[in-house]
Amino acid sequence: MTLYYLDDLAPGQHFKGHTRARVEESAIKDFAREFDPQPFHLDNAAAGDSIFGALAASGWHTAALTMRLLVDSGLELAGGLVGAGFDELRWPLPVRPGDELRVEIEVLEVRPSKSRPTQGLVKLRTTTLNQHDQAVQISVGTLVVQRRS
Amino acid sequence: MTLYYLDDLAPGQHFKGHTRARVEESAIKDFAREFDPQPFHLDNAAAGDSIFGALAASGWHTAALTMRLLVDSGLELAGGLVGAGFDELRWPLPVRPGDELRVEIEVLEVRPSKSRPTQGLVKLRTTTLNQHDQAVQISVGTLVVQRRS
Repeated sequence: MTLYYLDDLAPGQHFKGHTRARVEESAIKDFAREFDPQPFHLDNAAAGDSIFGALAASGWHTAALTMRLLVDSGLELAGGLVGAGFDELRWPLPVRPGDELRVEIEVLEVRPSKSRPTQGLVKLRTTTLNQHDQAVQISVGTLVVQRRS
Repeated sequence: MTLYYLDDLAPGQHFKGHTRARVEESAIKDFAREFDPQPFHLDNAAAGDSIFGALAASGWHTAALTMRLLVDSGLELAGGLVGAGFDELRWPLPVRPGDELRVEIEVLEVRPSKSRPTQGLVKLRTTTLNQHDQAVQISVGTLVVQRRS
């Protein structure tokens, strides 16, 4: 793992996550039972009659899995992956049972903090892709990153 | 529960969630172990030395709990709570062990679909508050809602 400080990051840098996450049907239903208990995330027949057309993972499950893929991505940021907020979060396609997800990361902006000389903000676009290289989540978020002291 | 169709929604409407969710320390660590295994979400001592100053829930845990509070909120939308995407997602304060969360929802925009006469889009601001009435998450998202046929 390479530890990246704010000073090591620049717009246009791309990173590919080192790992993949396979999404089992049981995991989709377990997550939904706890956090998003709606028929199209829990019940195959009901999902078939819904806007999703078949069982689909909760978008928040996709978001949580994306966070795990980021932690395991090999892009280790000084101070950890600490999200200040998101400007965009979209799910262009649902995640289905058996999908294998991975992430790609692009650095959009790097800004030293004016008030806190030891840290800054980096804006990243993170795309979560399935095994067909289709985007299932796109987010643009800002992280707090430490500066090299 | 009242079932709301797109036709029943208008900008300026406010809804308060019917339930609260208490966040136990064990739940913070369980979620983090699976989805966001970083020291400040897993280990009290390490969290004390981090930007969070003490153990803090993953923002994605807060987001997932917010989804559960929305499902249980009493605001039942025709077709279910189906997110098309978010324009904003922020965590102004961390969620701490023992916090009790609730949601408040404001309708910002209501738009019938031009291409699909049976549905439309509603933009909502959802604020997740702790037991001190401090916002721990603010999101602005667009949901797909069925029209009254």
